Amino acid sequence: MATKTVGVIGLGSMGMGAAKSCIKAGLATYGADLNEKALEQLQQAGAAAVSKDARDFADKLDALIILVVNANQVKTVLFGNGDECLASKLKANTPVMVSSTISAKDAKEINAKLNEYGLLMLDAPVSGGAAKANLGEMTVMAAGEQKTFDLLKDVLDAVAAKVYNIGSEIGLGATVKIIHQLLAGVHIAAGAEAMAMAAKAGIPLDVMYDVVTHAAGNSWMFENRMKHVVDGDYTPLSAVNIFVKDLGLVSDTAKELHFPIPLASTALTMFTNASNAGYGLEDDSAVIKSFAGITLPTKKD
Amino acid sequence: MATKTVGVIGLGSMGMGAAKSCIKAGLATYGADLNEKALEQLQQAGAAAVSKDARDFADKLDALIILVVNANQVKTVLFGNGDECLASKLKANTPVMVSSTISAKDAKEINAKLNEYGLLMLDAPVSGGAAKANLGEMTVMAAGEQKTFDLLKDVLDAVAAKVYNIGSEIGLGATVKIIHQLLAGVHIAAGAEAMAMAAKAGIPLDVMYDVVTHAAGNSWMFENRMKHVVDGDYTPLSAVNIFVKDLGLVSDTAKELHFPIPLASTALTMFTNASNAGYGLEDDSAVIKSFAGITLPTKKD
Repeated sequence: MATKTVGVIGLGSMGMGAAKSCIKAGLATYGADLNEKALEQLQQAGAAAVSKDARDFADKLDALIILVVNANQVKTVLFGNGDECLASKLKANTPVMVSSTISAKDAKEINAKLNEYGLLMLDAPVSGGAAKANLGEMTVMAAGEQKTFDLLKDVLDAVAAKVYNIGSEIGLGATVKIIHQLLAGVHIAAGAEAMAMAAKAGIPLDVMYDVVTHAAGNSWMFENRMKHVVDGDYTPLSAVNIFVKDLGLVSDTAKELHFPIPLASTALTMFTNASNAGYGLEDDSAVIKSFAGITLPTKKD
Repeated sequence: MATKTVGVIGLGSMGMGAAKSCIKAGLATYGADLNEKALEQLQQAGAAAVSKDARDFADKLDALIILVVNANQVKTVLFGNGDECLASKLKANTPVMVSSTISAKDAKEINAKLNEYGLLMLDAPVSGGAAKANLGEMTVMAAGEQKTFDLLKDVLDAVAAKVYNIGSEIGLGATVKIIHQLLAGVHIAAGAEAMAMAAKAGIPLDVMYDVVTHAAGNSWMFENRMKHVVDGDYTPLSAVNIFVKDLGLVSDTAKELHFPIPLASTALTMFTNASNAGYGLEDDSAVIKSFAGITLPTKKD
């Protein structure tokens, strides 16, 4: 049975893109967010309905995507309001695609509660940024039962360019995303460490950047984020505090797994230190500012 | 005055490629190495002469490239044999391109001694691997006086696709290479940490590899080296012990600069631990084997 309607909860940069992609794909799309401007924007883009409270359209949904900021928000959205919660209002067997970056432990807890309400969960974090979300080309790293994948097929086709099926066990999707964030966070911190050492050694940072980006020491994050350091522009695209949170999730997950993460632990220390020094809301490349005794490039007007 | 003759000392994978590129470029090329097979190979490729002892052709050289393994070998090659050393046999103002990966401190020491003999040094580490060396397309990150760059122009044109002029101060070339190796080493160790955690979490490593290489967590080293982990093939292309050495140089340089390198220090610990566990001569991706309590893919026949 084809999916005709979908709800998207959380209309930030990723959720808005996903919701618009659902509209473009011909799905009757319902949106919920606390931000009225986001609701207006989605309404104008052709939503079937929007509301601050997803319970207003819960009975109409064949599928649900949740793209709020963290696990607490996912839990509040689904299970807040006790007996009158959203989960209690959804039709039986509605597939719920939980796409926020959360821990495997939280994913399992949320799944268990959804099952109590007769609902199906896809543990489905996403990546790709706002641009890919707008194009319906997110990357989804998903775990869940095959029937949940099947029920979400039309939705996944609408929002994703690539869907990785990690396995049936809820939590594996969350874990893959978290391990991805381990690499992303360590690479930003390593880029900062290298560029800071270059500054201390008197090497022009634009030259250092040029060498690395044309050699085997390059990473996606080095190339993307260390450009901000070379330009002296710390306008936040993704903030230092996001990696304090995400490397915190990496650390929580490692503890659950009883597994050592020497580099990610070190990187978490670096981001936390930068945040405490007052750079938490700056671009994540500002982790370099926690290195003392160096002069960094400043922004040209 | 155009360069007509060049000597290449150290005919390993990089040096052999550089020497052959000089021959192809029309330079009369002299080669020295302790390995007789390497000498034969270069002779057959069209060398003007080869010898175990570069002093045999020292008076014929307009320029010299040194591509031996470490700083001690560079010093032995140039200043061994006391008053009868190679440096004493070269023509005045011969430019010596020192392309081994060495510390800035060693680069400065070697430069000072070369100057005593009236010789000019280009502090010129290279990267790109054997394939690029064979094509005459190495990347050279060089520091030295402009006249030394000028004297080496024909040689640099022959061996390099890209020459970065880092500055006039000897040691800056060495430092740029070492900072590049900081990133390379941390990225391999971070890849190993991520893949080890994935193994512990029960995520298929081929899936984890596929996700990362299509997302923002990717690095050149992750993509290149973690394929060896997925394939269970630790045939050494570059060995664990190379990064024990190179991250040791990073550490020495940081100490000279009085600068903290939290991630590189951690990565050095990881490679050293892997070496002590018996994996020193395996591919550098074998740093993952120092993580206990996981089952890694094994090589398929």
